[in-house]
Amino acid sequence: MTMFGFKEAEAAQLVRAVSPGELDRDQIENRFARAAWSGLAEPGDGVAGLLVERFGAASALAALVEHQPAETLAGDDLSVADARQALDRWMPRLNQATILQWLRQAARYGAQLRVPGDESWPIGFADLQRHGPLALWTRGREESLAALSRSIALVGARAATGYGEHVTMEASAGLVDRGFAIVSGAAYGIDGMAHRAALASRGDTIAFLAGGVDRFYPSGHDALLTRIVEHGLVASELPCGSAPTRWRFLQRNRLIAASSLATVVLEAGWRSGSLNTAHHANDAGKPVGAVPGPVTSAASAGCHRLVRDGRAILVTTAEEMAELAGGIGVDDVEFAPRENTRVLDALSTRVPRSPDDVAARSGLTVAETQSELARLEVEGIVRARERGWTKRGAPREP
Amino acid sequence: MTMFGFKEAEAAQLVRAVSPGELDRDQIENRFARAAWSGLAEPGDGVAGLLVERFGAASALAALVEHQPAETLAGDDLSVADARQALDRWMPRLNQATILQWLRQAARYGAQLRVPGDESWPIGFADLQRHGPLALWTRGREESLAALSRSIALVGARAATGYGEHVTMEASAGLVDRGFAIVSGAAYGIDGMAHRAALASRGDTIAFLAGGVDRFYPSGHDALLTRIVEHGLVASELPCGSAPTRWRFLQRNRLIAASSLATVVLEAGWRSGSLNTAHHANDAGKPVGAVPGPVTSAASAGCHRLVRDGRAILVTTAEEMAELAGGIGVDDVEFAPRENTRVLDALSTRVPRSPDDVAARSGLTVAETQSELARLEVEGIVRARERGWTKRGAPREP
Repeated sequence: MTMFGFKEAEAAQLVRAVSPGELDRDQIENRFARAAWSGLAEPGDGVAGLLVERFGAASALAALVEHQPAETLAGDDLSVADARQALDRWMPRLNQATILQWLRQAARYGAQLRVPGDESWPIGFADLQRHGPLALWTRGREESLAALSRSIALVGARAATGYGEHVTMEASAGLVDRGFAIVSGAAYGIDGMAHRAALASRGDTIAFLAGGVDRFYPSGHDALLTRIVEHGLVASELPCGSAPTRWRFLQRNRLIAASSLATVVLEAGWRSGSLNTAHHANDAGKPVGAVPGPVTSAASAGCHRLVRDGRAILVTTAEEMAELAGGIGVDDVEFAPRENTRVLDALSTRVPRSPDDVAARSGLTVAETQSELARLEVEGIVRARERGWTKRGAPREP
Repeated sequence: MTMFGFKEAEAAQLVRAVSPGELDRDQIENRFARAAWSGLAEPGDGVAGLLVERFGAASALAALVEHQPAETLAGDDLSVADARQALDRWMPRLNQATILQWLRQAARYGAQLRVPGDESWPIGFADLQRHGPLALWTRGREESLAALSRSIALVGARAATGYGEHVTMEASAGLVDRGFAIVSGAAYGIDGMAHRAALASRGDTIAFLAGGVDRFYPSGHDALLTRIVEHGLVASELPCGSAPTRWRFLQRNRLIAASSLATVVLEAGWRSGSLNTAHHANDAGKPVGAVPGPVTSAASAGCHRLVRDGRAILVTTAEEMAELAGGIGVDDVEFAPRENTRVLDALSTRVPRSPDDVAARSGLTVAETQSELARLEVEGIVRARERGWTKRGAPREP
């Protein structure tokens, strides 16, 4: 018996090793497919997001394994040329040994595979829509992952000044005191100080990496990241073994912005990468704060620029940073896009499921599930059959 | 012969001594009346502004000298109670010797009396409407007074830090290099540095005082103010001999804000008086900038507050400060309120004048003058007689 042409037994065993709870075959198939997609497509690949959204991760992966032509993947929202280009990106990576190795390495490091529909899936990722992560690999405490729903991102320059590090320390400790978790990117300078001060205050802290969670980067932060795994969480959308690249750093920034209630830039040069995080937060409609500094300090120029450009609110204290996120709790976040994904992920292409069953699998109420199923049926994405609901699979060759 | 009961010869001689050019009897009367009003009413007295606007300075003063009752001053825009209260404020100061002493002291110090309608009258004062100065006393260079039309106000805390003084020095020199004049309040700290750096760069600088221009305040800035008189201009709306008071400092700030194209706050504590200047600029619709600093510095807290409250734009360089005033030159300033005042000041209550005559006296074109006369006639403020136009005098007792 095979799973997309992979040896099912080993694949299923590995998926179970990196997943929580009991899993049925569809769930294993879905998780395996998302694990594969997390390494086949580069972060933020909108075409991968589109196909996974349209067909489900498993059917979309099956289409690749079956070498379906670009024409069968194309549609109203995807040209044949774009589909062909996407296949050219993904197919060279579609290697059985490599994909199993990602899972094997994750299991070895005690990493967990998170997929949309999991209760722990960061609610803010819904804002990223088709450019959201296809899976999330994590190492650390389950509680810290849940704490993302009340987190603030503190980011800034690697080349921080003593002033910037001091303000970051105060901000991180002050936000932990107010019940917030601290999200950052584990880089030298501001990021590192944000994590350290949160740990020192016994707060939750979450580090998003641009490479696999088995490879700590920068290597000088090995000890810090080890402590974050023990007391917080290290997360990445790339499978174990992946190296950080410039693109992955920039895309990692969107996860920092999307997973937090607000993003605060503490120090940033004129072209600092942390401005990119701020722009992602702007794009997602999330509040952005920037801490001012001496106009004579190049390390504050990017912060001042954000305020001047109207992209950030000037913030000077932890209290003002907390105000940024003020009122925007987990209850206020728009659920619609997430329900969509969660319902789709709870459906099979073959096995019909009752609304009750789908509700249980997706973690939504039966009412929410029924309303979402009705909406998806109108869009032609799911079908009501005699014994329950299924979702459409990838198109077959005519 | 008397002028409002004053000895005409001495009064006229003193007015001529502190005024430019040839003056006819109406002009002397008007200037004398405005000199008197500048000391009778406290700065910003809206009732004085209203009566001077309605009747002209001379007729309004005559009403006081003639002890006309509050009822004759009241009208649609002024209740009898408010008129009575105003008379109670002004009458105790209506002393012949005192008023002549103001003029005598001004003449002794080489001060000049400026009134609306003078070519040198700061155009920005029009924004203050009824709360504008009734006269302006100046000591210094005529060119520096004219330079107000291309000036930026640099203001800030007396308790400035080394950082604040450094940034002020760079800002002032940089703005002078770009052709701007520097306006400030001659206080210790930021103000003093703004003037000093402008003088060092051989730029125009104008200091607005809260007391008479014969009394330099603070006394520690005697030498600085003496240099400003030589190379720039010292100005006040209060007559010579007036002491600065808290009210006068706050009202002085509105002149700083109104006379400049933009106001920049360089350092300000949480309750700094320079925030008051910024608020005056906001009220007048003038651009306001604030320079950020370390969030750990109390001397920058007021600047950050202005930015957070949306009352100021964050600025970090002289170039960005220049941009604040960008495009807002003398040509763009709204002329209407000024034409109004200038036409009124060029009219007599008794001697009818032709539009050509009024145009020549007011410095407006004949077309502007005719349009303004027509508007004022509709409002019942001026009258067309057989041999020309007159303005209405103060109401007589019935």
